Amino acid sequence: MTSAGHSPLARKLSAFVTLSEAELAVLERLHQRRRTFVAGRDLVHQGQSAQAAYILSVGWVCSYKLQTDGARQIVDFQVPGDFLGLRSVLLRTSDHSFEPVVDIEAAEVLESDLLDAFAHTPRLATAILWAASRDEAMVVEHLVGIGRRDAQARMAHFLLELGSRLALVGIGSKEGFDCPLTQYHLADTLGLSAVHVNRILRQLRESGLVTFRDGHVTFHDHRGLVSLADFDPAYLDQTGPLLK
Amino acid sequence: MTSAGHSPLARKLSAFVTLSEAELAVLERLHQRRRTFVAGRDLVHQGQSAQAAYILSVGWVCSYKLQTDGARQIVDFQVPGDFLGLRSVLLRTSDHSFEPVVDIEAAEVLESDLLDAFAHTPRLATAILWAASRDEAMVVEHLVGIGRRDAQARMAHFLLELGSRLALVGIGSKEGFDCPLTQYHLADTLGLSAVHVNRILRQLRESGLVTFRDGHVTFHDHRGLVSLADFDPAYLDQTGPLLK
Repeated sequence: MTSAGHSPLARKLSAFVTLSEAELAVLERLHQRRRTFVAGRDLVHQGQSAQAAYILSVGWVCSYKLQTDGARQIVDFQVPGDFLGLRSVLLRTSDHSFEPVVDIEAAEVLESDLLDAFAHTPRLATAILWAASRDEAMVVEHLVGIGRRDAQARMAHFLLELGSRLALVGIGSKEGFDCPLTQYHLADTLGLSAVHVNRILRQLRESGLVTFRDGHVTFHDHRGLVSLADFDPAYLDQTGPLLK
Repeated sequence: MTSAGHSPLARKLSAFVTLSEAELAVLERLHQRRRTFVAGRDLVHQGQSAQAAYILSVGWVCSYKLQTDGARQIVDFQVPGDFLGLRSVLLRTSDHSFEPVVDIEAAEVLESDLLDAFAHTPRLATAILWAASRDEAMVVEHLVGIGRRDAQARMAHFLLELGSRLALVGIGSKEGFDCPLTQYHLADTLGLSAVHVNRILRQLRESGLVTFRDGHVTFHDHRGLVSLADFDPAYLDQTGPLLK
């Protein structure tokens, strides 16, 4: 069956498991508490407990941790089809904050609904474990980026990852994608200063690899960028369902 | 019911869910293919596919990624009760390598057994999703450490995390724990040189906070170390079962 017409989360999970009509229905029911949130106001605070999880359907969200000295480390961004705070529900206390980068639409998922869905549709639980594994693999790549990649490779890897993730939910391609992030987002993600981010983006543009301008990332030479970043997308596991 | 006498994994999962006799039996069956592996030889290679997952019962394992220039970033260590390569089975290709730090005992878990256990014991699947969330939260802390913590706080945070994790499976406490890691392991985990690791450990010892010597970590002033590291263990979620 096709996943067209379904939620971004259903499209994403279809890369791992071919969902039955019944499983798709459970997934759609998890979307019933639709809400909108405005840009810039935290959805969940670091240290908060007893909060719900959300399934993002429209817009971008930034997840980050603040240090006591005020320094911000961005852990990742969430795009349509991603869970927000799934880990926090399971771990009971949110270990990080979520802030919408733009106005967003997200469905609130109560802990009880989630545990209920897991109990009655185990294939869906496995698919969500797959999605969580993929999220973890991305954080691992960000750790390796900050720990071991030079600034150009780090930026290139991050933009390629975003392009692949967005392609999976139909809003990106090897040509590029719309991107609402600022240089400050990129700086706090990649452990660079905003000035350094600008310099790196100029170098990548002048090398004819990629341009990030006016809210759009354009890949001029996708293959060249993959080579620069040593980008192996296997960790995103987007090649088709394991569970039929 | 008590988890004493059960596997380290059962002890760990009991922090999240009170497992029934039937669920414990499924978990024990996942342990039936017991194997031993010698220190220093990769169990799983980065890029390998179609491998099994393992449940570690004795010993320590190092998970790491190599860059093409040979630089190593250690992502995390696995201790008794941890899965090895669970993410890799779900994502089909291992995005990192696993190397036993010492001789280890681990049970091989075939993908089919795992998916079967998920399908028939959904509470166990939820508990394993909890464990995966906890693993992800640790990687997030390592990212924040390298990105935003100074070298002393980074080291202190890492040793406190290890102490808490080991306490959960009964082989560590606020007094300390046996630790087979070398200064090279610490360096490649924390993004420091081995010389820098030695200096930081000496500073922490001379401050009367912690000593790491002869394969043993001794916490002299656990509270002082927590304060130095700004360590909030909520992300390890060890306070008792959510699911009764």
